Amino acid sequence: MDNANDSHELPRLVIPPPDAAAASAARERLDSLAKVPGSLGRLETLAVLLAGMTGQARPRFPRKAVALFAGDHAIARHGLSSTGQEVTALQTRNFLRGGGTINAFTRNAGAGLTVVDVGIDGEIDMPDTEAADPAAPIRFVRRKAVRGARDFSAGTARDPVWAMTRAETLACLRAGMDVAFSEADRGMDLLAAGEMGIGNTSPSSALAAHFLGVPVERVTGAGSGISAAMLQRKTDLLAGALARHFPAGAEREPDPVEVLARVGGPEIAAMSGFMLGAASRRVPVVVDGFIAAAAACAATALHAGVRNYLIGSHVSVEPGHRLLLEHIGVEPYFDFGLRLGEGTGAALFFPIIDAAVRVLDEMATLADIGLTLPPQSPQSPQLKGVRDAPAGERDAGSPANRARP
Amino acid sequence: MDNANDSHELPRLVIPPPDAAAASAARERLDSLAKVPGSLGRLETLAVLLAGMTGQARPRFPRKAVALFAGDHAIARHGLSSTGQEVTALQTRNFLRGGGTINAFTRNAGAGLTVVDVGIDGEIDMPDTEAADPAAPIRFVRRKAVRGARDFSAGTARDPVWAMTRAETLACLRAGMDVAFSEADRGMDLLAAGEMGIGNTSPSSALAAHFLGVPVERVTGAGSGISAAMLQRKTDLLAGALARHFPAGAEREPDPVEVLARVGGPEIAAMSGFMLGAASRRVPVVVDGFIAAAAACAATALHAGVRNYLIGSHVSVEPGHRLLLEHIGVEPYFDFGLRLGEGTGAALFFPIIDAAVRVLDEMATLADIGLTLPPQSPQSPQLKGVRDAPAGERDAGSPANRARP
Repeated sequence: MDNANDSHELPRLVIPPPDAAAASAARERLDSLAKVPGSLGRLETLAVLLAGMTGQARPRFPRKAVALFAGDHAIARHGLSSTGQEVTALQTRNFLRGGGTINAFTRNAGAGLTVVDVGIDGEIDMPDTEAADPAAPIRFVRRKAVRGARDFSAGTARDPVWAMTRAETLACLRAGMDVAFSEADRGMDLLAAGEMGIGNTSPSSALAAHFLGVPVERVTGAGSGISAAMLQRKTDLLAGALARHFPAGAEREPDPVEVLARVGGPEIAAMSGFMLGAASRRVPVVVDGFIAAAAACAATALHAGVRNYLIGSHVSVEPGHRLLLEHIGVEPYFDFGLRLGEGTGAALFFPIIDAAVRVLDEMATLADIGLTLPPQSPQSPQLKGVRDAPAGERDAGSPANRARP
Repeated sequence: MDNANDSHELPRLVIPPPDAAAASAARERLDSLAKVPGSLGRLETLAVLLAGMTGQARPRFPRKAVALFAGDHAIARHGLSSTGQEVTALQTRNFLRGGGTINAFTRNAGAGLTVVDVGIDGEIDMPDTEAADPAAPIRFVRRKAVRGARDFSAGTARDPVWAMTRAETLACLRAGMDVAFSEADRGMDLLAAGEMGIGNTSPSSALAAHFLGVPVERVTGAGSGISAAMLQRKTDLLAGALARHFPAGAEREPDPVEVLARVGGPEIAAMSGFMLGAASRRVPVVVDGFIAAAAACAATALHAGVRNYLIGSHVSVEPGHRLLLEHIGVEPYFDFGLRLGEGTGAALFFPIIDAAVRVLDEMATLADIGLTLPPQSPQSPQLKGVRDAPAGERDAGSPANRARP
């Protein structure tokens, strides 16, 4: 990692820079295709980004997966969520049985789903299937590092309660990395990180406030759906906790692992590790909602190079989501008013990514369709150049070019 | 049609209203599913809309197609486009061979493509395959009603040149309707209309200015990509043409068929007819870009009921696109800066539509996953209600509910 102090604690990942030659080849190919140059807008820049990440001028993503990390949060007991903490385990079981929204969306995208218990406060009574059939549509990975994050709003100014110990946090980060390596090893070429954790917008808001250096009310929203009064209580609780964990004028700046340990959560740290691991294998990761963006922000604090392998998807109603994405330099593509998490926004974007790279890989070129270019400028294949070509150089034999009767 | 004067000219279509019971059943089912109610935002309202259109509480769209109508425009000869008119025929052949962007996007969505020559100024030397294999991924339909629209900016104030005769316009509308019937007959359950026609943003801007009652400069853009000087020439040309075709204080208001005949074009009128035909069969039609929106606007002028079967997709950089969509009451879902046409934006949205209806059809309910609801309010299945349930009524036997040690 960037921070030398952490080198003995986390595997020292090498994240290669994007492949400029592949990106440039993709850009040139896009301009040579049988369409108006640039007319696919942001899908063209997306295709170029993906070429740079994968090192392939014509990348394809036949094998996609969402890794969904589950964990609990004792801070949820303050009644800041619309549901009780037991829903984390109930929904995790539901995902393993195929009944969740993320199941519908991964099936829709032809993607696999790997569900990881990294910090549920309870047991998922289903077998670990990571080592089983690598093509299984749903896998379960048991990597519990903590039985739910502790209530980081508790404790005193002198001794605030940390959400996780440093060792637990490192175990979560390593679990996420290992899942990313496992996904890469089974041939997955496009990934997303999703989460399930009742109450996890609270640690995400705390992380966003700390990493962005903004007041917590700017990055605190209604989560899955709470009242204005509850939102005020949530903001007050988080502001108090942040003041105790990160007092102004502290003699030393906490490193990103400590920030995750103090005010983060198991599934958030695991998502950060997952993004780092995927980036080290040059596998693009689609960033989902607010919680995933908080994890991405922590990941970039650990290793700035990870941002070169992150792809935006949606922007949600959570006010901190857009700020986090701006901070890490990841652009969202759509806003459907989603506020579910699970990786749903990222999985929705998988087919759009497929469409963008199909353009590079499947389309005819201008030359293929008979739009020959002016011989003086073969290097700049612009459609408009065709207008300047001598008539004899166009597809002159075609009936379409005959003068109108 | 609404206009009694047209009843002898166009088939009198009956467009049924949406099925309120199916929409209501879909809404209730969405609220009963294992997720926070409303947390899928606009995808939930989309699913409810589709239930109302199809009359099915759990609609699915396994058979999708884009009908791409091609036509030419003599107004393009004023040099208002970035490419020459011959590109309409060249690209149409390219689509039939599978090399266009719309081919990549329909393949991506598992959708068929029906290419219709309704008004190309030239011949497509490929066989009509409409009657062939109904499952063919690419079909060609020869329904040429005119060899390109005439230059509607020509002529005098007393005698402006019409783009098409009234008979040609009606033939285009009928061709579009017939293609929609043919698609419905071969089992297509979700459709989109796309177009190829060099210069067709000019008639689209003219139609938008007329139907919206706004100055043409508000709805005129750079099309596929022209300079500021060309844009000014385009706007001036269109403003002059509109003043001649629709003089202020005219003694009679032209009907929508006449508007399409004066300043429209073959593929635009055919798209209008296609939308009307699909709506009469209760098949939803996804609206693509600016030209498709102009066609949708003309279709709603012909029969207001068609709007109940239109689904938005993207909003483009053309300034008139959003205004047209607002006028017809169709909401776009994303903005990728597309400016290609062909139905590409609509085809990109097909997988998102699939995802929205999979939620209705595939997800477990709250009851399925063991979130029992308070017995006093079984009719209002709200996740937050779970918090108020007596502990004994929750999934109390589950390890996840045990008190933390």
